[in-house]
Amino acid sequence: MAKDSNPVIICAALTGAATMKNNNPSTPYTIQEFAEESYKCRQAGAAMIHVHARMDDGQPTHEIDRVQAIYDAIKEKSPDVLVCLSSAVGIFKTPEERLAQIIAVKPEMASYNTNSMNFSIIDRNTGIIFFDYLFDNTFTMLQDFGKAFEENKVKPEIECYDVSGIDNTMIISKQGFFTQPMNFNFVWGVVGGQRFRPEMMIAMKNALPPGANFTTCAVGVEQFPANMMSCILGGNMRVGMEDNTRMPNGDFAKGSYEQVEWCVKVAAALNREPATPAEAREIMGIRKES
Amino acid sequence: MAKDSNPVIICAALTGAATMKNNNPSTPYTIQEFAEESYKCRQAGAAMIHVHARMDDGQPTHEIDRVQAIYDAIKEKSPDVLVCLSSAVGIFKTPEERLAQIIAVKPEMASYNTNSMNFSIIDRNTGIIFFDYLFDNTFTMLQDFGKAFEENKVKPEIECYDVSGIDNTMIISKQGFFTQPMNFNFVWGVVGGQRFRPEMMIAMKNALPPGANFTTCAVGVEQFPANMMSCILGGNMRVGMEDNTRMPNGDFAKGSYEQVEWCVKVAAALNREPATPAEAREIMGIRKES
Amino acid sequence: MAKDSNPVIICAALTGAATMKNNNPSTPYTIQEFAEESYKCRQAGAAMIHVHARMDDGQPTHEIDRVQAIYDAIKEKSPDVLVCLSSAVGIFKTPEERLAQIIAVKPEMASYNTNSMNFSIIDRNTGIIFFDYLFDNTFTMLQDFGKAFEENKVKPEIECYDVSGIDNTMIISKQGFFTQPMNFNFVWGVVGGQRFRPEMMIAMKNALPPGANFTTCAVGVEQFPANMMSCILGGNMRVGMEDNTRMPNGDFAKGSYEQVEWCVKVAAALNREPATPAEAREIMGIRKES
Amino acid sequence: MAKDSNPVIICAALTGAATMKNNNPSTPYTIQEFAEESYKCRQAGAAMIHVHARMDDGQPTHEIDRVQAIYDAIKEKSPDVLVCLSSAVGIFKTPEERLAQIIAVKPEMASYNTNSMNFSIIDRNTGIIFFDYLFDNTFTMLQDFGKAFEENKVKPEIECYDVSGIDNTMIISKQGFFTQPMNFNFVWGVVGGQRFRPEMMIAMKNALPPGANFTTCAVGVEQFPANMMSCILGGNMRVGMEDNTRMPNGDFAKGSYEQVEWCVKVAAALNREPATPAEAREIMGIRKES
Repeated sequence: MAKDSNPVIICAALTGAATMKNNNPSTPYTIQEFAEESYKCRQAGAAMIHVHARMDDGQPTHEIDRVQAIYDAIKEKSPDVLVCLSSAVGIFKTPEERLAQIIAVKPEMASYNTNSMNFSIIDRNTGIIFFDYLFDNTFTMLQDFGKAFEENKVKPEIECYDVSGIDNTMIISKQGFFTQPMNFNFVWGVVGGQRFRPEMMIAMKNALPPGANFTTCAVGVEQFPANMMSCILGGNMRVGMEDNTRMPNGDFAKGSYEQVEWCVKVAAALNREPATPAEAREIMGIRKES
Repeated sequence: MAKDSNPVIICAALTGAATMKNNNPSTPYTIQEFAEESYKCRQAGAAMIHVHARMDDGQPTHEIDRVQAIYDAIKEKSPDVLVCLSSAVGIFKTPEERLAQIIAVKPEMASYNTNSMNFSIIDRNTGIIFFDYLFDNTFTMLQDFGKAFEENKVKPEIECYDVSGIDNTMIISKQGFFTQPMNFNFVWGVVGGQRFRPEMMIAMKNALPPGANFTTCAVGVEQFPANMMSCILGGNMRVGMEDNTRMPNGDFAKGSYEQVEWCVKVAAALNREPATPAEAREIMGIRKES
Repeated sequence: MAKDSNPVIICAALTGAATMKNNNPSTPYTIQEFAEESYKCRQAGAAMIHVHARMDDGQPTHEIDRVQAIYDAIKEKSPDVLVCLSSAVGIFKTPEERLAQIIAVKPEMASYNTNSMNFSIIDRNTGIIFFDYLFDNTFTMLQDFGKAFEENKVKPEIECYDVSGIDNTMIISKQGFFTQPMNFNFVWGVVGGQRFRPEMMIAMKNALPPGANFTTCAVGVEQFPANMMSCILGGNMRVGMEDNTRMPNGDFAKGSYEQVEWCVKVAAALNREPATPAEAREIMGIRKES
Repeated sequence: MAKDSNPVIICAALTGAATMKNNNPSTPYTIQEFAEESYKCRQAGAAMIHVHARMDDGQPTHEIDRVQAIYDAIKEKSPDVLVCLSSAVGIFKTPEERLAQIIAVKPEMASYNTNSMNFSIIDRNTGIIFFDYLFDNTFTMLQDFGKAFEENKVKPEIECYDVSGIDNTMIISKQGFFTQPMNFNFVWGVVGGQRFRPEMMIAMKNALPPGANFTTCAVGVEQFPANMMSCILGGNMRVGMEDNTRMPNGDFAKGSYEQVEWCVKVAAALNREPATPAEAREIMGIRKES
């Protein structure tokens, strides 16, 4: 029997803006660590690496030289891998800081956030607020980021924490700057976004424009059922230290790559194979590399 | 056959922060107009009036004396009617301004917003942004407003523009200040929130905590299918000039009361009767009036 | 504002096989009564009449001359109305009896049943079985009826009491005899089929092949929410004495036409107008009359 | 971290009425083969074995001595395993034949079918009917089987090929003979029943009575996504030669046990462990063994 014709694009999100080595020591800080972790994930089956750049001390950064250096190091060690940079970067960054690094480095893909929203740290048992943050992504930013991305041939990964993220994107898309196909990421479990519910993933899939692709990621233990569900629905998968530092049994992951291995097993259980980076580029409509 | 045991609470939202007399001349500005429009809606079947106070020139206001005067005038002319004040009030109001009037007037109910979100005016055909606004409702505000409401026996009407609004509310509710039952309003069609989709209303209903009530409102023509769907699902209904200035056939409504009449007809088509204010207070767990 | 471009096809099911005059005296038995009731429904807004023929004493019949006489009388008094004959006819009829009358009369449309199923009378409070019946519609019958219908230019109204009815139809459709578009009817509330649930209507709509139309009917009080929901979802509506003898408030309907009036009001509440028979033929792909 | 408190009951359906050794040589025919295959599945993680008895030549049988001998042999080799006998047995069996063996052997659990339905073999590409069968399960049978099962302390596994199967069961349950909790099996992919759709599994779960358990099985390649989805939703899993002779990659399974191993891996990927037979009895409310 031929393999299923729908390979699954696995993405490893190595860092995020919040995970630190004391959460999981595999979190990369140095340029070399980014290259190493990316390589391990690529070997494990990931076609794409999602990067929030860090300084050597672990601080999130939007500093262009650093972002470029990390980007280059990843590509040097894993030449075919797809790299998706974050345009969120971390808290307290201005829209200009968030966008300038993308325009400078021109990755094949970058995250594109679609809602202004609360993005906080709250104890789920007591409701006590530890850190309260408003993550702003105004329509003006949706417009400016979208245009700038596409003008620089950076494919947006459209991050949706709620159905309104899809609706926001479709309204601003009437300006005509998005190239087809559109690639969405359904994000679950952020305090300020929605929790994972299987029926909501179906509703979000149903709300997508024709021809769109989708993937998913989820914070903490919801990472596993959300990604499994995406695989059932024909979607793609994203895991990594950004979203969750552990494995399903509660043990710390040896690295993002161990969660990539989890994805590969789940996909195999449905007769889906990991997409190669070339297949991922083809599916997601990413410009051919020069 | 006995009437259905599930009466429908109809709410008339007379103004909002944006509808002006040049949109529909029935929009009340003066104290007397508020009393008159409320009376017409009560006569038509509404148990509750939702109020964003205005100055005589139509400007939205948070000025306590004005809000109190409008509140009193409504209650004088329609003594049994339930009044739900807005804690959103209008753009560019501070959290303090939004909350102080509620604490001062102590209505039986007030709107409680649950997401920071974009809240903008965009041409749906071209994607051109006319007015871009970030409506902030941080978790700290959810906490502070929620506590202050309940301490003052103001029942929150929990406004959800997305499923995350429910999740945000349930997280902060762990602090324990909300009284039961909780009363949710599913809001559709704001540019920045989600569009109306029947499957999403079902998913939102499924996401509610046990014992909760829900109602719905929607901007523009989605007002009608959304309210009809809510009535089918056993929920309540909200209409009025705040959300839509027209009737289903495109004619301007003679006033919010004409949309209330629409609700009554739809409810009758399902053998549901309009709740009286007393029934509405009982259902929604509102403190008995002194 | 222009009327909605999606007119709603209203069908009146005058009799069924079980409703008798002692259930509701408006149920037609005589040829003249069929013509009269059809005319009233057409005047009220129905584009289509669904007919289970009866003898003068009320017995369901498959006797061709009687079916033809009823068909002709309806068309004589209401020349433009669409008539959909039943191929179910009533209990204890053979497949040959069910089909022969359709082939003989060649109506523009006829019901096409898609599941073998229980079709019984049971007390819903006690579970006591009053009458137990197995309504057989084997795949061989789906094949033979489908071919015969289409060869005689009788458009099938595809009756689905469950999602499997859709799946059965799509499997047998691989033989290639169905003309496009396909027209489905979601039936709710038969004892042996599924009860009405809004989420199931959405799931059934999602399960339809591209380009298909749908309508709905439901037994007893579920008639009203099911038809309202169909109208919200862009579907069509079927009411009448076959399904329910009462109005939402529990009063007996004056006739099927009073329920048609209910449909017209609900459609108007969503700015949909009743389709004319000509529009209904166009939408459902029915052969032009000779 | 403690293991998830929701262990997954894995059932291996060794034979069904149709799978033959030329489909997969691991299909048991002899008494010894039943004992061997059951043992392998129990060792692999199954808590329950579902049995359609066969003669040595592979013919399905309802002959009591044979069924008893197979039952006893399974329990002798795997004393703790739960055995669920089929009351469907195979085609052309009378209700009496189907029921008598259950009453005689008194297994802890037996399948309980809930719809009369088509149950056929049709080429999915051409729609050609190879074998057409009507599987009758009238309400009278639902009543008689249900009462007889419960009087003999045989817990029904309630087989639902469609939502109406749940509704049928709930109507007849008003007679009061079912013990709590009720245990449902959602069956997908039979030609005559519904295909697997994730949104339908959610709708069926939502349609269950409070406190009910559910599991799932599906014919052919749908076996894998359906069981994975059930595991995500907190349900149980059923695999085996009855439903599918292959593994996800298209290779023939070495036996039902290899599919049980697949279940264990999927469950582990969600931090769920296989229930022991004792846990399964506790969860499903099965009488303690004498």
